[in-house]
Amino acid sequence: MRVSIIGLGLIGGSIAKDLRKNGFCQHIIGVDSSYQNAQKALDLGIVDEISPLEEGVKQSDLVILAIPVDHTVTILPYVLDHINDNTTVTDMGSTKKSIVESVEGHPKRANYIPAHPMSGTENSGPEAALEGLFEEKIAIICDQKSSGVQHLALVEKMFQYLGMSIAYMSSDEQDLSTAFVSHLPHAASYALANAVLSKENKQIIFDLASGGFRSAVRLAKSSPQMWAPIFTENKEYVLEAMDVYIKHLKNFRDSIATEDPTEMYDMITNANKIREVLDNKNPQLIKNEQKIIKLYTRKN
Amino acid sequence: MRVSIIGLGLIGGSIAKDLRKNGFCQHIIGVDSSYQNAQKALDLGIVDEISPLEEGVKQSDLVILAIPVDHTVTILPYVLDHINDNTTVTDMGSTKKSIVESVEGHPKRANYIPAHPMSGTENSGPEAALEGLFEEKIAIICDQKSSGVQHLALVEKMFQYLGMSIAYMSSDEQDLSTAFVSHLPHAASYALANAVLSKENKQIIFDLASGGFRSAVRLAKSSPQMWAPIFTENKEYVLEAMDVYIKHLKNFRDSIATEDPTEMYDMITNANKIREVLDNKNPQLIKNEQKIIKLYTRKN
Repeated sequence: MRVSIIGLGLIGGSIAKDLRKNGFCQHIIGVDSSYQNAQKALDLGIVDEISPLEEGVKQSDLVILAIPVDHTVTILPYVLDHINDNTTVTDMGSTKKSIVESVEGHPKRANYIPAHPMSGTENSGPEAALEGLFEEKIAIICDQKSSGVQHLALVEKMFQYLGMSIAYMSSDEQDLSTAFVSHLPHAASYALANAVLSKENKQIIFDLASGGFRSAVRLAKSSPQMWAPIFTENKEYVLEAMDVYIKHLKNFRDSIATEDPTEMYDMITNANKIREVLDNKNPQLIKNEQKIIKLYTRKN
Repeated sequence: MRVSIIGLGLIGGSIAKDLRKNGFCQHIIGVDSSYQNAQKALDLGIVDEISPLEEGVKQSDLVILAIPVDHTVTILPYVLDHINDNTTVTDMGSTKKSIVESVEGHPKRANYIPAHPMSGTENSGPEAALEGLFEEKIAIICDQKSSGVQHLALVEKMFQYLGMSIAYMSSDEQDLSTAFVSHLPHAASYALANAVLSKENKQIIFDLASGGFRSAVRLAKSSPQMWAPIFTENKEYVLEAMDVYIKHLKNFRDSIATEDPTEMYDMITNANKIREVLDNKNPQLIKNEQKIIKLYTRKN
């Protein structure tokens, strides 16, 4: 099988490493708009050859887009225009609705699987690519009924080779959930870094930063090239999530200002529930050798 | 030397483990208002004996308070009332001004060193005590001119045995700096956990939570017993820090709402500076075998 990966950064590079290592494919074609990035990926052995977009796409059984979401919106229709009839296309973007809309009604829409692997680091570029980045994590596949079964099967198999479980959602549900679980934490972390940098001497920040501070601002290291388009593409839900967050922050602030210790105590106790949510070892996901495929339906 | 530790939780327990292991003292007296905690600390070998407060304090050359800051405000004057003339007292609380004020004018004020080791985890209780928790971290000592030189020397030596560097500040400066670098990240994390818990199904949070989300909400697991009093005792500066943070969040939100990509891009790029601040290996602190003692003066 011939696979081409468009975008040879953290995500594209990490996928290439594991697909090869785990025997999903032996030959990977790399496509990147930056000549420097492409050459680096080749030098690092992440891809086997570099190709211009159209040529790479035409030769491939599977095309994986791993570029910023605004570029995906532009390039995905072009990719579908140029693939062979049997080629499967998927993208790894953190937002899905606007990407799906960009190919609505396209004659090859069924060849495309909108996907989002829930993993990453705060680093970027081909040097940031890591083996095992996706192991034991969840990949979201959206609007699966709009895709052909053979294409769905191939992308599912690809995620299984990456060690991932698969969750199905509508692209609307995925954009809302990731607004809260991924995009909001990034926005919160950027604003936290900016707030502290605006008031504190850098040497004091460095010296006083404990593990807690480092943990809270880790996401603020993430690149604007990837994250600015995510906030814009998922504007509606990101704003909703930020408004909910600002409301909770203000409530917390006011409980301190009015010296209402019971209310503050209750808010902290409620926040502590995140421990049981995150530390919960879901036996279905963790223990089962056969990776789980789950269908999510939103209650409210 | 006889050391007593009041409060046998994460901080008190971790101090006990390393002071013994590193040869600072051989016998540690434990004091805890919870019989269960005290017994657990004894069973775990963290302390050598359990004692009532007054009795423990009277027998000790060094008394270390490691209890919530509101309790320290109440108990510290009582401790100074009951120590011998040569006994040194220190506390490990995250706020300093109100604690220092609680013993202002006390005849044994010079025996007391207000301190704050910048390290911890989100866990609590004697079982949470860890060896090496303070290694390579900073301990803040406040208002050093109000303390006797022999007491200062002993507490500095204690921090050196814990592997810490020491920074001197006024208690006012420490409360302002920790409001931004420690208390604000906790408040931000509590509100983030509450915002996400208020809107999302717990199974979805668990399944979609990547390392980034876990990192951003880690501090939200911290106990209300320790943290509610910190917010109250440091109310003025915590509110200032939260207001600065909310302002930065709103600016970020508005740059998304108005689709001003340049402004958002600039805010993310500015936040990225936290990487160089945190990854900066300060050779003075990291490479020097002799732990550094620094005097901070605030520029603005």
